[in-house]
Amino acid sequence: MILVSVDDHVIEPAEMFDHHIPARHKDRAPRMVKSPAGDDMWSFEGQLLPNVGLNAVAGRPPEEYGFEPTRLSQMRKGCYDVHARIGDMNANGVLASMCFPSFPSFAGRLFVQTQDKELSLAVLRAYNDWHIHEWAGAHPGRFIPLALLPLWDAKLTAEEIRRVSRLGCHAVTFSANPVDFGLPSIHQPAWRPVWEACSEEGVVLCMHIGTGGPLPFLSPEMPIDASIAATPVSIVNTAADWLFSQVLRDHPGLKIALSEGGIGWIPYFLERCDYTYQHHRAWTHQDFGAKQPSDVFREHVLTCFIDDAVGVTLRREIGLENISWECDYPHSDATWPRSPETLARSLAGVPDAEVDLMTHGNAMRWFQLDSFARLGRPSCTVAALRAQAKGVDLSLLRGQGGKPPSASRRPVTMADTMAQLAGALDGQASPARR
Amino acid sequence: MILVSVDDHVIEPAEMFDHHIPARHKDRAPRMVKSPAGDDMWSFEGQLLPNVGLNAVAGRPPEEYGFEPTRLSQMRKGCYDVHARIGDMNANGVLASMCFPSFPSFAGRLFVQTQDKELSLAVLRAYNDWHIHEWAGAHPGRFIPLALLPLWDAKLTAEEIRRVSRLGCHAVTFSANPVDFGLPSIHQPAWRPVWEACSEEGVVLCMHIGTGGPLPFLSPEMPIDASIAATPVSIVNTAADWLFSQVLRDHPGLKIALSEGGIGWIPYFLERCDYTYQHHRAWTHQDFGAKQPSDVFREHVLTCFIDDAVGVTLRREIGLENISWECDYPHSDATWPRSPETLARSLAGVPDAEVDLMTHGNAMRWFQLDSFARLGRPSCTVAALRAQAKGVDLSLLRGQGGKPPSASRRPVTMADTMAQLAGALDGQASPARR
Repeated sequence: MILVSVDDHVIEPAEMFDHHIPARHKDRAPRMVKSPAGDDMWSFEGQLLPNVGLNAVAGRPPEEYGFEPTRLSQMRKGCYDVHARIGDMNANGVLASMCFPSFPSFAGRLFVQTQDKELSLAVLRAYNDWHIHEWAGAHPGRFIPLALLPLWDAKLTAEEIRRVSRLGCHAVTFSANPVDFGLPSIHQPAWRPVWEACSEEGVVLCMHIGTGGPLPFLSPEMPIDASIAATPVSIVNTAADWLFSQVLRDHPGLKIALSEGGIGWIPYFLERCDYTYQHHRAWTHQDFGAKQPSDVFREHVLTCFIDDAVGVTLRREIGLENISWECDYPHSDATWPRSPETLARSLAGVPDAEVDLMTHGNAMRWFQLDSFARLGRPSCTVAALRAQAKGVDLSLLRGQGGKPPSASRRPVTMADTMAQLAGALDGQASPARR
Repeated sequence: MILVSVDDHVIEPAEMFDHHIPARHKDRAPRMVKSPAGDDMWSFEGQLLPNVGLNAVAGRPPEEYGFEPTRLSQMRKGCYDVHARIGDMNANGVLASMCFPSFPSFAGRLFVQTQDKELSLAVLRAYNDWHIHEWAGAHPGRFIPLALLPLWDAKLTAEEIRRVSRLGCHAVTFSANPVDFGLPSIHQPAWRPVWEACSEEGVVLCMHIGTGGPLPFLSPEMPIDASIAATPVSIVNTAADWLFSQVLRDHPGLKIALSEGGIGWIPYFLERCDYTYQHHRAWTHQDFGAKQPSDVFREHVLTCFIDDAVGVTLRREIGLENISWECDYPHSDATWPRSPETLARSLAGVPDAEVDLMTHGNAMRWFQLDSFARLGRPSCTVAALRAQAKGVDLSLLRGQGGKPPSASRRPVTMADTMAQLAGALDGQASPARR
């Protein structure tokens, strides 16, 4: 088995901007600071950003998961140190990984909101340069680089897509609903330069859950488990918006990825979209020509799953070429460090060629990843990588976290999680757990 | 084949309150009035409610579907006349139907918002008495009666559940998120009398899409098709909230129905809930005892589908006893008057006993419908009912609608639909289409 994960997360290290920010912006680059309580936070343009390690709990025993940590020292080094990350990937048999940002938010909302757009652009480019050269570049063939975009300006965004493409980066993170960032919807012509740049450069727009569109929040008392269970499929709204937009039909070369959305619901969704088209097109004036919406989906959309036996069973109804796998390291949904064993259960009985497409082939093709040429295919298997991980310490990380989300044994709610995050900002959430 | 539909809609007729409102409230009961432009609207407590026929387009050619009509005369008589409705049901081979309200909204939000709660309660009870006696009661065995609830007061709600249960009504319409009505969440102990009344009386809480929780609205330019495609699965948020709440585990006899939610996504959802439970329970403190969340779902939740081949294929992963069918007459998603033919395609190859459960058996058991005892099973089949429909005029209803949602041939957007609805309120949306 060979594993390529299209959705993991990097916790940015303190020194990331040291070598990439232009001299005139150096003093105003984001800095990692210590709060009076000893927490690590990013400071940028007068804001304190406490989510230095949002849900980065890999390696903890599950009873100590939570939406802190607030200090790098509370996490595995693999969260923020690329060499340690390679060790953690090896321990899990993962050949390559695409890592979403943390402190700027998954799609860079922070930089859209920054007032000084010249500064914002300089910082964003520095981020991308660090990510491409120092993070992904440190171990060629082991990462799918992923760039942030200056979404407040479509022309700058198109330029950045072309710039990072020249640097070998074929994935960019985009909002699941730009309107939530205060930007035009995907239906506005303003975005056309972006769609063209992606099409021409073969760069995939990746839309991670939680970067726009409605989320499952019904009340503060909603159990956190309900939110965890229902959040991935919330990307269905983005999928529907794109599928019935003119954008995909107008740009045959444009590719998009639904990041952390799961796959088992896709066959239902495609049937529903085709039904909607056949049943309503006469009055809604949709025109897919000789195709159905499900055909257009399969031409343009890459999906991914962590562990999804229903989706694997229905792989032909999704599209064998449209499925990829993710680990979600270091977040609490991750299967690290037992991904191969977890996956083997869902993949039992699936022909090898189809396993290969879902576990790495599709991801490598969509994102132009050349690991086999660089490393030789025999070095890329789970077994070969794990053989290199002998020195990686997998003992559980106990007692490293901040305070637990709920003081009592009652089920944890959305309100508990919000309080835990807000507490981090007050510098009050991090008395050691014991 | 025998068909029982658990989700249709009644367009309330003008005279509905004539026989049921107490004398002292008679002057303040909702009245149907004509706007200056000739549209029918309900008038109640100083409000004009234009959605007299929200999406009641059965019988129109699809190119004339829309979110008007605004006059009873623009609809099939079966929308608001129970005897004509029986004709339309016969023409479609439908034995029995559960009809959600229209002008008070699907879950009675109107009555929650009314200031004078004594009046509101009187009107709501009159509505239920009309629905149970005059609508469902006009043709015994042909309807599953469905009552509205005075949701602003849990004690009154429990009393109304017990009252309608004594009248033979075993279904009530409840909000998919009461917080959206300004009410406590389902996790609050305030609701306990309601859960107890339902459990003790065998009354099912039905939660229709659109009655609470996040909906797929990303921007005004979002294609209406995207919203139509993605709205049913939005009930996933409600399903997750209930499943991880303590309510179902604390009330083993409580039953809920997800109305118009579709079914093909349920196997993914149940796998995801079980994964979430196994993966996160150590820190979220959830406790399902010896069960998994999917077990609790199957003990408590009835689902339904219009046409859903993926869901039918996965019926065992959903639960053979948890699936029912709906027609959605007279809304634009309905398969009327060709439901048997549409269904036959999705049900091809399914054993008869399983078809029977999904098409009527489960619905009759969950809602205690006694059509076979009343009418004799041979009279209940599609063929027998259609034989009674010889006089029903099925010719298309052309040129009856208000103005089309979009003046041009470009695809219809959310904004177009909103303008069509708002235009109805201005009395400006209903110049005849030709």
